[in-house]
Amino acid sequence: MKQSIKSRQISRKAIHITDALLKREMELVRDTVIPYQWEALNDQVPDAQPSYCMRNFKVAGKINREKERRKGYTPPVYPTDSICVWPEDPDHLEERFYGFLFQDSDFAKWIEAVAYSLEQYPNSELEKTADNAIELVCAAQQPDGYLDTFYSINDMTKRFTNLKDNHELYCLGHLIEGAVAYYEATGKNKLLLAACRFADCVAENIGPEEGKRHGYPGHEIAEMALARLYELTGEEKYRKLGLYFIDERGKQPYYFDTEHAVKNPSASKLRYQYHQAHLPVRDQKEAVGHAVRAVYLYSGMADFARLSEDNSLKEACERLWEDIVSRKMYLTGGIGATHIGEAFSFAYDLPNHTAYAETCASIGMMFFARRMLLLEQDAKYADIMERELYNGVLSGMSLEGTSFFYVNPLEVLPEACEKDERKQHVKPVRQKWFGCACCPPNLARLITSIGSYIMTESEDTVWIHLYAGCIFTKELDKGKVIISIESGFPWDGHVRIQIEGDTDRPLTIALRIPDWGRDYQISEIEGAESKKRKGYLYLTKVWRADVFELVFPMEVRLIDADSRVRENIGKAAVMRGPIVYCMEEADNGRDLHLLRMDEQAVYDTEKKQIGTETMIAVKAQGFRQNKMEDSLYHLHMPAEYKRTELIWIPYYAWANRGEGEMQVWTRY
Amino acid sequence: MKQSIKSRQISRKAIHITDALLKREMELVRDTVIPYQWEALNDQVPDAQPSYCMRNFKVAGKINREKERRKGYTPPVYPTDSICVWPEDPDHLEERFYGFLFQDSDFAKWIEAVAYSLEQYPNSELEKTADNAIELVCAAQQPDGYLDTFYSINDMTKRFTNLKDNHELYCLGHLIEGAVAYYEATGKNKLLLAACRFADCVAENIGPEEGKRHGYPGHEIAEMALARLYELTGEEKYRKLGLYFIDERGKQPYYFDTEHAVKNPSASKLRYQYHQAHLPVRDQKEAVGHAVRAVYLYSGMADFARLSEDNSLKEACERLWEDIVSRKMYLTGGIGATHIGEAFSFAYDLPNHTAYAETCASIGMMFFARRMLLLEQDAKYADIMERELYNGVLSGMSLEGTSFFYVNPLEVLPEACEKDERKQHVKPVRQKWFGCACCPPNLARLITSIGSYIMTESEDTVWIHLYAGCIFTKELDKGKVIISIESGFPWDGHVRIQIEGDTDRPLTIALRIPDWGRDYQISEIEGAESKKRKGYLYLTKVWRADVFELVFPMEVRLIDADSRVRENIGKAAVMRGPIVYCMEEADNGRDLHLLRMDEQAVYDTEKKQIGTETMIAVKAQGFRQNKMEDSLYHLHMPAEYKRTELIWIPYYAWANRGEGEMQVWTRY
Repeated sequence: MKQSIKSRQISRKAIHITDALLKREMELVRDTVIPYQWEALNDQVPDAQPSYCMRNFKVAGKINREKERRKGYTPPVYPTDSICVWPEDPDHLEERFYGFLFQDSDFAKWIEAVAYSLEQYPNSELEKTADNAIELVCAAQQPDGYLDTFYSINDMTKRFTNLKDNHELYCLGHLIEGAVAYYEATGKNKLLLAACRFADCVAENIGPEEGKRHGYPGHEIAEMALARLYELTGEEKYRKLGLYFIDERGKQPYYFDTEHAVKNPSASKLRYQYHQAHLPVRDQKEAVGHAVRAVYLYSGMADFARLSEDNSLKEACERLWEDIVSRKMYLTGGIGATHIGEAFSFAYDLPNHTAYAETCASIGMMFFARRMLLLEQDAKYADIMERELYNGVLSGMSLEGTSFFYVNPLEVLPEACEKDERKQHVKPVRQKWFGCACCPPNLARLITSIGSYIMTESEDTVWIHLYAGCIFTKELDKGKVIISIESGFPWDGHVRIQIEGDTDRPLTIALRIPDWGRDYQISEIEGAESKKRKGYLYLTKVWRADVFELVFPMEVRLIDADSRVRENIGKAAVMRGPIVYCMEEADNGRDLHLLRMDEQAVYDTEKKQIGTETMIAVKAQGFRQNKMEDSLYHLHMPAEYKRTELIWIPYYAWANRGEGEMQVWTRY
Repeated sequence: MKQSIKSRQISRKAIHITDALLKREMELVRDTVIPYQWEALNDQVPDAQPSYCMRNFKVAGKINREKERRKGYTPPVYPTDSICVWPEDPDHLEERFYGFLFQDSDFAKWIEAVAYSLEQYPNSELEKTADNAIELVCAAQQPDGYLDTFYSINDMTKRFTNLKDNHELYCLGHLIEGAVAYYEATGKNKLLLAACRFADCVAENIGPEEGKRHGYPGHEIAEMALARLYELTGEEKYRKLGLYFIDERGKQPYYFDTEHAVKNPSASKLRYQYHQAHLPVRDQKEAVGHAVRAVYLYSGMADFARLSEDNSLKEACERLWEDIVSRKMYLTGGIGATHIGEAFSFAYDLPNHTAYAETCASIGMMFFARRMLLLEQDAKYADIMERELYNGVLSGMSLEGTSFFYVNPLEVLPEACEKDERKQHVKPVRQKWFGCACCPPNLARLITSIGSYIMTESEDTVWIHLYAGCIFTKELDKGKVIISIESGFPWDGHVRIQIEGDTDRPLTIALRIPDWGRDYQISEIEGAESKKRKGYLYLTKVWRADVFELVFPMEVRLIDADSRVRENIGKAAVMRGPIVYCMEEADNGRDLHLLRMDEQAVYDTEKKQIGTETMIAVKAQGFRQNKMEDSLYHLHMPAEYKRTELIWIPYYAWANRGEGEMQVWTRY
């Protein structure tokens, strides 16, 4: 098996999700999130700040029609110096742009989730709503392909003048993602053509050639979107543009300095860490700055490393990956340890209560991991993908799919969230929606596209990365092979894989052995050739009608952090399979800081119902320290403890039973 | 002994400080801080941002002379909407105001420290410098008594229009403090008259009468200053103005709302907590907002409670005191647990690394404590005064007197101060000076006036609050009594008190028994009547030539915090006498979080030289946890420890040996 074997994404249409947990999540997105989001985009959610997203497209379309009708018509010019414009009187709106300047992208994220959902659950009514929305959006496109309502409504002469802050290329990226997804799902190309025309317009204005702006996005995503557009269309111009964004980034003199006429650029290197634009990407060794932007960039870099077989880019991705997962990631997969700049903090600085750990950043880590897996079939990437999915990602949404976390702390004291401004980014309960609504739609598009994460393939191999229940059909030159996975993941370690083939060609099935599941067992598979490589068990044979079973150990594990993570010294966490556990006040009473684990105790499991979902809780005997509420400071007394039962629930399910304390790391 | 016995401040001129530690500190202020500060006020410190303080007075004086010379001359008008104006080109200054808008107060703090220093150390040259400075300042006074260069240079029509933010009344307060001190020290009244005229001008413009502004200071201090001015002059108008500031505060509708034309005052109650103006002061039960402002206000309240024999005001002071010392104070006496608003956090939220604990706030607690002691002779106030002095206050200045802490954390990791913006208010080493230079001059005036804190007196009683070496002469109707204290405080618990009298009148000496020193011993005093009350041992006799000795226990004490202080759970601190100890990297190596105390160990002491000072260090056998630097997260392993010697040094002396980790609270 050579390093250069390439795997590719499977077609989502070829996979059908049957997994209990993930199917339920997909259905929540279909039944609750997507309809709610559509109402939000159309300002129809009572008591919520209007989005103005679809309204902006309508206004931009109206200006277009006005121009068409009355040649020589010049629309009024509104200011473009504010990132966010909310109307003073919402009952009397002017025909101008309202909302965050990246508001257009909310439509793009919605249409992307709709597309994936339609692949699993065809729905002609939803498709019609989507088609109508696409009409509105396309009507807002300018004659030269430009499509960003913030500038087309406000002042077209200012477009492309603030790539650092004003998110035009971010909107382009999301538009491409949504358009490609909708085309792949429905075969309809109207939005795809609009996205291509916008990309063409950007390429006309930005690039290496003289007379063009030599810029790149302040908020990355266009890179991976252009890679995807290139893969779909085969158009070299999109590959070129995406790669230009990657290669131009961080070059000196900084484009952002030029763009903003910065006179004294001495602080720019530090400042542009926020945008990962402080160094050429190939020279970047540490993950820095805004965590979502960072992993979006790294995802794009991984795409182009693969598409261009660019080894230096691949090595940069590997270094940045390593820096994150070995020094800057929470146990839950959360990244971004500080809310200041929503950014990575320094190595091993992973405070539990003040964590940022944005849901979108965990989703971005899944993007990055999936792309690294396409570059190299190493289970370490899938291990993180799984950690993110079952912990830092799913925690972003309530079990009813109606409320969301932007921030995913590992410890919460509700009083501190309310009273301590240093913790006011941390919410003790999920919120209905957000002014800056990036996380809920991002969750929607991730969950609905989960099929893309379960497996990858090459001509003769199928890699199984996640043991989620599903049925995958691999078409071969002659005939096909159907792989069915049944599992009780993440609660039960038994996995049953059934493979039916009507071909004489041998096929390799590569089974990921999770880092936590090295002591697995597998039933005999007659006639299969097997070998192990980088965390995968490769089984090769001509499959006809085979069934085999894997059993992964589901013992409760106590986990320590590296001793350089200061806040976790003397503390341990509980995991079981891929699931990170936490304690909640609902089960353990108040003052979780008074609890101690008993390292020698038996850690049992029991079924527990939270909301409509049944999951596995962990329980063990531990200790509760007696309170010493004498005076604020008093002579030391040996601590006294009483025995008590400690109960842990899956981290992703926390805050589904009202407000209360929560902690992942507990003293032992 | 009745509740209503009143004590009063002693005359600082009647006390001579002989104490080894405090005398050294006073000499540092005399020899180093005051001269440095004078250079700073005159923009003569190389490599430091100029203060512009004295320059502003000169400019204002010049405008005055110009007006006088050319009647009808209208000075140019500069904007007053910025709290801080620094020149773009420091080599070509316009004749306008520069610096923070409260820059005038830097002179006032300096002259106050100079005054106290002259009382202990007469110095004709320094006095001449001070007299010349006073000439400059007084030349800047307006015909109606107004004296604030920010407005008199920029735009006199705007004065008194922003009492919330613009610190005019803060400048008034400091001017009064400095002027009274200088008068008391030198008998010269030029500055005192200027301060009275400014106070008269304020009283003309602000007060209950129609046509006046019904406002009060955004940053308190004028209250206690006016009380002091009233006590010196006996002028009822100053008592009235100070009490008006206190009683008007927090009334609805809020003056600050009116002043700022706030349309929607719904958030004002919360917002004005910062200024302690959210409620009438008598209704305030919790210490909130900016910690320095708070304790300055409470000090003024305590003054007026005493001067007006106002019981409801006294009770408010007692409640606020109790809230601070039993719920919101660090072990070091530091207050202000959050840098956001330099404010109190909620009860028991006392994070160690992100502490604010401003030096000025600890000084303010000494102001408050001293005034509470005048209201009621209860040693609990002196206990806190002592805790502040030897810990949170002295820590503000380096052992050489050349650098200063604004923020006094209880734990420091230098890497975090540098890289984590949430901790960038915390400095791992003292700074030369500050743009907003409140702490160094505040330290200077506190240390030089320490005589006011050591004792208080009434007709027939002298209370000894601090066992600092000193000689105090009490003049009686007939004859006098000289009390000499010799002590090794804070290192040695032996106190020798010698009393010589030439009077037949009995005098009561009240000796404070510190909360940590209840197991004291006292040598026999022939013929003395003794009783105990609220932490004082009262000894009454006709003193002739008596000598007695007190011995306070100086065993090392391990201290716990209330279990509601989450960050200190499972941790203890070390104290000895009044001194709080800390561990430093210089003695204990890096990674202080890996260290554990052994509760059963013997805690020894040894002399230790830090800089030029000899102090008592504490040492004991403890443990160092072995590092587990395997992977970021790994299977739990029982922690392994090796024995190691732990060394603690006095907290106030930390960061005198370069940059390194420091912690007060250690795991046990």
